[in-house]
Amino acid sequence: MSATWGNYLKLTIFGESHGKAIGIVLEGVPPGITLDKDFIHRQLQRRAPGQNKLSTQRQEKDQFEILSGYFKDKTTGTPMTFVIANQDQYSRDYTKQKNIPRPGHGDYPGYVKYHGFNDYRGGGHFSGRLTAPLVLAGAIAQQLLKIRDIHIGSHIKSIYNIQDEQFNKIHIQSEQLESLKDKDFPILKNAQEQKMKEAILEAKNDLDSVGGVIETAMINIPAGLGSPFFDSVESRLAHMLFSIPAVKGVEFGSGFDLSTMKGSQGKDEYRVEEGQIKTLANHNGGILGGITTGMPIIFNTAFKPTPSIGQRQRTIDIEKMENIDLEIIGRHDPCILPRAVPVVEAVGALGLLDLIIEREGRSWMS
Amino acid sequence: MSATWGNYLKLTIFGESHGKAIGIVLEGVPPGITLDKDFIHRQLQRRAPGQNKLSTQRQEKDQFEILSGYFKDKTTGTPMTFVIANQDQYSRDYTKQKNIPRPGHGDYPGYVKYHGFNDYRGGGHFSGRLTAPLVLAGAIAQQLLKIRDIHIGSHIKSIYNIQDEQFNKIHIQSEQLESLKDKDFPILKNAQEQKMKEAILEAKNDLDSVGGVIETAMINIPAGLGSPFFDSVESRLAHMLFSIPAVKGVEFGSGFDLSTMKGSQGKDEYRVEEGQIKTLANHNGGILGGITTGMPIIFNTAFKPTPSIGQRQRTIDIEKMENIDLEIIGRHDPCILPRAVPVVEAVGALGLLDLIIEREGRSWMS
Amino acid sequence: MSATWGNYLKLTIFGESHGKAIGIVLEGVPPGITLDKDFIHRQLQRRAPGQNKLSTQRQEKDQFEILSGYFKDKTTGTPMTFVIANQDQYSRDYTKQKNIPRPGHGDYPGYVKYHGFNDYRGGGHFSGRLTAPLVLAGAIAQQLLKIRDIHIGSHIKSIYNIQDEQFNKIHIQSEQLESLKDKDFPILKNAQEQKMKEAILEAKNDLDSVGGVIETAMINIPAGLGSPFFDSVESRLAHMLFSIPAVKGVEFGSGFDLSTMKGSQGKDEYRVEEGQIKTLANHNGGILGGITTGMPIIFNTAFKPTPSIGQRQRTIDIEKMENIDLEIIGRHDPCILPRAVPVVEAVGALGLLDLIIEREGRSWMS
Amino acid sequence: MSATWGNYLKLTIFGESHGKAIGIVLEGVPPGITLDKDFIHRQLQRRAPGQNKLSTQRQEKDQFEILSGYFKDKTTGTPMTFVIANQDQYSRDYTKQKNIPRPGHGDYPGYVKYHGFNDYRGGGHFSGRLTAPLVLAGAIAQQLLKIRDIHIGSHIKSIYNIQDEQFNKIHIQSEQLESLKDKDFPILKNAQEQKMKEAILEAKNDLDSVGGVIETAMINIPAGLGSPFFDSVESRLAHMLFSIPAVKGVEFGSGFDLSTMKGSQGKDEYRVEEGQIKTLANHNGGILGGITTGMPIIFNTAFKPTPSIGQRQRTIDIEKMENIDLEIIGRHDPCILPRAVPVVEAVGALGLLDLIIEREGRSWMS
Repeated sequence: MSATWGNYLKLTIFGESHGKAIGIVLEGVPPGITLDKDFIHRQLQRRAPGQNKLSTQRQEKDQFEILSGYFKDKTTGTPMTFVIANQDQYSRDYTKQKNIPRPGHGDYPGYVKYHGFNDYRGGGHFSGRLTAPLVLAGAIAQQLLKIRDIHIGSHIKSIYNIQDEQFNKIHIQSEQLESLKDKDFPILKNAQEQKMKEAILEAKNDLDSVGGVIETAMINIPAGLGSPFFDSVESRLAHMLFSIPAVKGVEFGSGFDLSTMKGSQGKDEYRVEEGQIKTLANHNGGILGGITTGMPIIFNTAFKPTPSIGQRQRTIDIEKMENIDLEIIGRHDPCILPRAVPVVEAVGALGLLDLIIEREGRSWMS
Repeated sequence: MSATWGNYLKLTIFGESHGKAIGIVLEGVPPGITLDKDFIHRQLQRRAPGQNKLSTQRQEKDQFEILSGYFKDKTTGTPMTFVIANQDQYSRDYTKQKNIPRPGHGDYPGYVKYHGFNDYRGGGHFSGRLTAPLVLAGAIAQQLLKIRDIHIGSHIKSIYNIQDEQFNKIHIQSEQLESLKDKDFPILKNAQEQKMKEAILEAKNDLDSVGGVIETAMINIPAGLGSPFFDSVESRLAHMLFSIPAVKGVEFGSGFDLSTMKGSQGKDEYRVEEGQIKTLANHNGGILGGITTGMPIIFNTAFKPTPSIGQRQRTIDIEKMENIDLEIIGRHDPCILPRAVPVVEAVGALGLLDLIIEREGRSWMS
Repeated sequence: MSATWGNYLKLTIFGESHGKAIGIVLEGVPPGITLDKDFIHRQLQRRAPGQNKLSTQRQEKDQFEILSGYFKDKTTGTPMTFVIANQDQYSRDYTKQKNIPRPGHGDYPGYVKYHGFNDYRGGGHFSGRLTAPLVLAGAIAQQLLKIRDIHIGSHIKSIYNIQDEQFNKIHIQSEQLESLKDKDFPILKNAQEQKMKEAILEAKNDLDSVGGVIETAMINIPAGLGSPFFDSVESRLAHMLFSIPAVKGVEFGSGFDLSTMKGSQGKDEYRVEEGQIKTLANHNGGILGGITTGMPIIFNTAFKPTPSIGQRQRTIDIEKMENIDLEIIGRHDPCILPRAVPVVEAVGALGLLDLIIEREGRSWMS
Repeated sequence: MSATWGNYLKLTIFGESHGKAIGIVLEGVPPGITLDKDFIHRQLQRRAPGQNKLSTQRQEKDQFEILSGYFKDKTTGTPMTFVIANQDQYSRDYTKQKNIPRPGHGDYPGYVKYHGFNDYRGGGHFSGRLTAPLVLAGAIAQQLLKIRDIHIGSHIKSIYNIQDEQFNKIHIQSEQLESLKDKDFPILKNAQEQKMKEAILEAKNDLDSVGGVIETAMINIPAGLGSPFFDSVESRLAHMLFSIPAVKGVEFGSGFDLSTMKGSQGKDEYRVEEGQIKTLANHNGGILGGITTGMPIIFNTAFKPTPSIGQRQRTIDIEKMENIDLEIIGRHDPCILPRAVPVVEAVGALGLLDLIIEREGRSWMS
């Protein structure tokens, strides 16, 4: 069990959705940095529900407080602690009962793991709300990476059965990645936005939900990061990606599609281009033998549709061991994909920065 | 960087494909166990190349030696060390040169990471050969899990564009899982075997290769294992799965397919059945909120086609920074999927046992 | 670098002495426990300065807030977060300047490590104040251990050159250990208290300070805890003891004295007594081969005299690279030993509980 | 439990005294280094018994084999594996029985921990023999540190009640430290050698044993290494020192003596000397606030007298739960101090290198 992640850039998440506050301890941030608080706030806002009429009405305003590691508007280099107060904590949000698990949520296994003592209101320790501190820390990581001209960006690759275009795995401009951050609904092919939103609204009206896939790219990556057995780049990133609630699949480069190709189709031949070593294709998503090649790191993260649907569902009463029906009354988010985008970027940034500090040491920025 | 994995069942892999031997240190095996050496040998044999005419001709006989942790035919409870001698170490296997990276392999990023000093013969530290100690340890883990009637089994879900059937995610018999271990080519629908083998032979004749997907199931799982943030079951398993060479995608339950469904389609409703809590479907693959529910754990691992194809490929000379062509001469494995099956099972077993020991302590078998 | 400690009972300390708050994330507390908040407060009070006229006048009232892991007056089993607000934060406490390091403190090496950006007010991240969250967590650990009738207690073994008696290493009653917690000045031989206090007051009047040694005992220990290479009980405890500011030496059992004995003098022979296995002496302090024997664990922790003395001292100006004199004006604590006692106990309790959970699993209390 | 130690320079020890071989996996050694094998052999020889008539007659010739991480006489940068064959494995060495624990050894707690299944011959997993791989790895660490002009040396500070001189904590020449490595009996004041050897011989004739203290110094240390809470330099070093069998106490700088001083006596005032920052004294042993200052790191390690004495001792039969007498017949080492010196140095070197790589990254040697 571990609320702590990371080897060289360490983070410990704490708090619960219905507790007073949530937060994160972040170690490894170099001293002397002035935080870009606007950037942090914008990422937090992208994650917060209630930003548009598609999502849940639950209001979350994520203001944060810095308890340590920041002095005279500069990081000290000591561990940083950020706290975000929880607001809008109406237990009446969900007609939830301790002994009646909602299908698709962590209620039942949590009941078993914590012997029935866990805080069952909202999501408790399982809550998507705990991704807020992750986004905060990821924003700081992105700020640091940009000093090295390393950029991260994501778009919604698909929602339900509607596809967006994909990134060009070989040439990606930093401007494209950064501009996606300014979109409420970050996709590449604008024509798809309307179709996707219609699918979401239709689900909302049906008291249903839809899932999707987020594609992420990281560019200007130093080669040589990661270790085979047991810290490949895929391992490090996937470990944290699968911690994000609702993630059920992760693939790198051409991923599962690559498994359907022949070697001659899925090859990444090398070439020297303007004094740099590149590959002609990038089916491997910038990672070979678990180590970065310098080509863009590309990965897809699959999100299941939110289980909090308003339709009637069959469940049980754990204490009586009886079958009963359940209807979730409350705020209902039909699609979390737009809000999940900054979370996935945060994870990518944190994982990458951790690997960079490993290789280059704590004076990596010098 | 870490050659060590695990929290409670720890393993440290050592060795290189062209060194004298490879091995593993395994901590956490309870004392008093008599190892099922036949079972270990059978799993090692499934992994070794040269078992059938489809694969490479390189001979590997994996006999192992126990250096510690075993006394009077019983485990002592102290760390166990296993060593497997490397045979058949003809550097002439591959017309490989230090400064000419093979596309799709870890040669180039390894060159960068290790400043050009890494052993470039065969795969060195990146080699698939290092999965042999993993299979050995996984076999021990499987033996221990069977004492608790926990079973693991896998089949080849697809090769190239040819699909096998899938496991029934709700009802899987231990006999089915164990019987798959006896098949040289483990699939569910026998009719597909011929098609798959034809695709492999065709690739071999073309000096090409094919990839595929392995589906794994683990049954009779205790509920309550794993922790959200940052040790979900998906995180723990994916971390090690992505360490297996050639793995480019991992999904749990209905995985990426689940992202295309509506919440009403992908739901896992609960029911009480014969005094046990089950789900009507199992799209989540036995894991909710990062914690096991007791339903079968189901996951898919996607393997890219082996990059060691015999066809001419474009590459570079790193030292001269020139573009050149490359032709790999030597033993050529067109499809590693059958050999990868025991590796994936090993990973599943080790990850699961690690989680069980966490929850139940070192006297977990009592 | 790590603000996190522990394998099975994990704790992450955060905050700084002059920040808004300090706190701790504590994972591994079993669900269903009602915290003994009175006990926690008493331990915090023992640690706080300003409790008596011997110590510093700086007032610290340690009220804590629980941010997570506690619901309806019971632990949930999820990570617990405690926050203690910092009060009395007068930067004017110390006439301290960023570029003038106080001798004996972490100022100078902290300046180097953090490139001059660390918060130099008070002790910043080095502060003894960060032992408050440690005491809080340790109090919870002690409460849990008492459920198993395991007790921890300490006394001041020496201050300056004045010695108290020592514990009987073989027979220690739980009542003796618990009663020491109720003493403001915990010693065994009451006659020594006056002499020790006189030495402290004399130092205070001279603007000087005195150090000392704390002896700790833990009884009713299960045998079999700890692992040789690299997690012996001594290693685990010493690792955390040396994190306490001002600690410069740790010994177990007869420690350094044992190094002056012959084997025949320092032996711990075995005997069966009332169906239990005991040793006739206990020079090894309850630990052999790095593993507990069941005999009382005894260890001594040596504290250097507080470097915050009011006398004139020679130091430097780091920026000008000049030699200058320094006089520390402010609140001056001549002896931290009484306040350090609950800190040492907290460390012992946390270390022991971590080892117990390792061996017995998360259902260790059942 | 962990056979693995280290954050950035990781080592995993494996093997047992009566198994076929022992060894170590060492990760983090930079690529391109040609190992000084003579130096490694000399350190191993200092550790081996049977080098002189004072010690045990048991012969150990420590030849090692490199299984990985070394190619064309240079380190590759991948994990290195060293194996040392066990020779002279006469179980008849000790008239030892599984159910009769030797006082002062790990036999009894090991019996409990491993449920009676541990290899009881010799010391099994507890054996001092496992310090051989530690010395090997430490020799490599010392070679790397010397490239940075960092030197480590130790002498026997005391044996029984006979004292040697102490290091000058402020000025220590590298020549002094290196020359101590060439002495069979490393002490500073030659006149004490005879007295110490007489005490050892006397103990040998009495079938008894003596313990002692080793003082170690490390010079030319970069300032800024280590972290308060929970990775202070003292914590990191003490953690590994207490893993060495027979160690019962560790102190830094003036250690326990410092606890008897006043602050005015034990102060380390700063001064600028030839453009460098030094302290006038060095009671803190080069570490303040858990971080190195640049002054020599000084620490003492206390070893208890070997419990393997030939005299009759009282013990028990664990299975019958009866009191019996025991006489250890066999090879009897009256004093392990000379052999422990290279072990302590190895630990110091490994701990320091781990901290340096943390701060400076994997390209720390560039």
